[in-house]
Amino acid sequence: MKKLINDVDSLLAESLDGFAAAHADIVSLGVGAAFVRRRTLKHGKVALISGGGAGHEPLHSGFVGMGMLDAACSGQVFTSPTPDQMLAAAQAVDTGAGVLFIVKNYSGDMMNFQMAAEMVTCDNATVIVNDDVAVEDSTYTTGRRGVAGTLIVEKIVGAAAERGDNLAALKALGDSVNKATASMGVALTSCTVPAAGKPTFQIGVDEMEMGVGIHGEPGRRRVRLASADDIAAELTGAILKDLSLRSGQEVLLLVNGFGGTPLLELYLMVNAARKVLAGAGIQVVRYLTGPFVTSLEMAGCSITVSAADATTLALWDAPVHTAALRWGV
Amino acid sequence: MKKLINDVDSLLAESLDGFAAAHADIVSLGVGAAFVRRRTLKHGKVALISGGGAGHEPLHSGFVGMGMLDAACSGQVFTSPTPDQMLAAAQAVDTGAGVLFIVKNYSGDMMNFQMAAEMVTCDNATVIVNDDVAVEDSTYTTGRRGVAGTLIVEKIVGAAAERGDNLAALKALGDSVNKATASMGVALTSCTVPAAGKPTFQIGVDEMEMGVGIHGEPGRRRVRLASADDIAAELTGAILKDLSLRSGQEVLLLVNGFGGTPLLELYLMVNAARKVLAGAGIQVVRYLTGPFVTSLEMAGCSITVSAADATTLALWDAPVHTAALRWGV
Repeated sequence: MKKLINDVDSLLAESLDGFAAAHADIVSLGVGAAFVRRRTLKHGKVALISGGGAGHEPLHSGFVGMGMLDAACSGQVFTSPTPDQMLAAAQAVDTGAGVLFIVKNYSGDMMNFQMAAEMVTCDNATVIVNDDVAVEDSTYTTGRRGVAGTLIVEKIVGAAAERGDNLAALKALGDSVNKATASMGVALTSCTVPAAGKPTFQIGVDEMEMGVGIHGEPGRRRVRLASADDIAAELTGAILKDLSLRSGQEVLLLVNGFGGTPLLELYLMVNAARKVLAGAGIQVVRYLTGPFVTSLEMAGCSITVSAADATTLALWDAPVHTAALRWGV
Repeated sequence: MKKLINDVDSLLAESLDGFAAAHADIVSLGVGAAFVRRRTLKHGKVALISGGGAGHEPLHSGFVGMGMLDAACSGQVFTSPTPDQMLAAAQAVDTGAGVLFIVKNYSGDMMNFQMAAEMVTCDNATVIVNDDVAVEDSTYTTGRRGVAGTLIVEKIVGAAAERGDNLAALKALGDSVNKATASMGVALTSCTVPAAGKPTFQIGVDEMEMGVGIHGEPGRRRVRLASADDIAAELTGAILKDLSLRSGQEVLLLVNGFGGTPLLELYLMVNAARKVLAGAGIQVVRYLTGPFVTSLEMAGCSITVSAADATTLALWDAPVHTAALRWGV
């Protein structure tokens, strides 16, 4: 296992210390690094809290700040954070308007966030993200997995919270954006969880995993390497089938790297995906490209399409100031 | 070779098409994709032009836009662009105040940019970046290599150009920032150049290349894997020795990923490097962390330290609007 670490057990804590130092203008750490929180809270605003296992950075800690999350709870690599972390985060960032939890649909995260929701004394609601169209159930999931579309939900709902929407409105918006968003990914290599010390799965030199999950979970099928155009056609085709978009629909296109694929290739995938979308009469009006919801150093990418309207586009375009996404400020 | 591509020969052109589509608000492509240019030029401003081989993205195309570069010329992967590309870029973006070329010190780039400088009819000057302290001469270089510090030069000089500094002042500023900036990197794995189809170098499962170049060139020595703290101590130590900083000096710290190392590890390296710097009495006042000057999918990172003063900090903080760096706008 080749990684830039000192010790598997202290990896997360040391990384969070570095993150907090590098972004001290935006975030601070909760006691015991239980969570990353927005340094300056906005009073009367609904607090947005997300979290999940480490290894997907910049998700979620990189999305804490003005216009997006108020707190993010990180578990160890690919391991859910605990209800205690979420409870501590809620107590730290609730300013009286309640808390909205944004949870990716994994059994561990779902159970722990649900326990936290029962423990918190403030008003709260939960948006569950399940944008991965690849498979119905999976290794760690009943129902569809939550993957890169989570960032789109967090950005759009974050902007609505910033402008003062109430808890019920944010919950409804989050559910609606999740429903309008679909993703699918492909892996060319495995990732290696530090505590395991060996690749999560074996894959041949001429193979790829079509529909892979962000923890290296199996996808739809193991197939021979294909061209970028063929991959984009399959991923985008599955997404379009799921979303049933009409011709002329405006969308956001996120081409997300899993960690080990260079930007040179990701932009080539942008080009391939936009041609498929254009062929279906779908109009890409916003692009985001890069490693945003990663799987450690896994090579591969996912494509996410999110149907947009004037309201969601304005929220997408609204100012954001986080470690990983920043514009308008 | 596992890459998301259609064809090795069209990889760069397709990637640039995707890049230009995704960032059409900021950039456009020159004829034949010879260069990426800032969509809206600022008249009377000195034009900044950089370039080099592909495979280091987001460098340089991701730094074209307000507050940074006016054009970037990309060669094929790890191959210099041609003088014709640079000449076409200069003709497209010069608005009468002249052109400043920012060139990483590689023999091919140096020769081609020099030929371009002789061909252009407008006033021009060249800043050569050679921030890599690892080795004196290298595979493609006479003298020190230009690596991740290039982005710091481009940002600071870009901000000065935006505020209206003239060509001579910008040339002097670029030389001065380059002199105040030093870098060194480590590779845990090789990259694979698409046209070669096999890893650039062989490296054992328990080895790393200390002082590696951004094309996988040999560094100072091939050693056994070490802890992140030991790696940070060696890289940062070599940098501090080169820069001869006094205690109390304020610096920018860039921890740059080479492409295959997750952000989780890069922030851990931030933490390790800042402890070394604090031990030497050096004060980190700005951080930048992520894959900015990459080597395709190589695992590893580089550390860059740049001595700052009130002037350079203000230029660093000035608004920038490019695909890969954006703040204040």
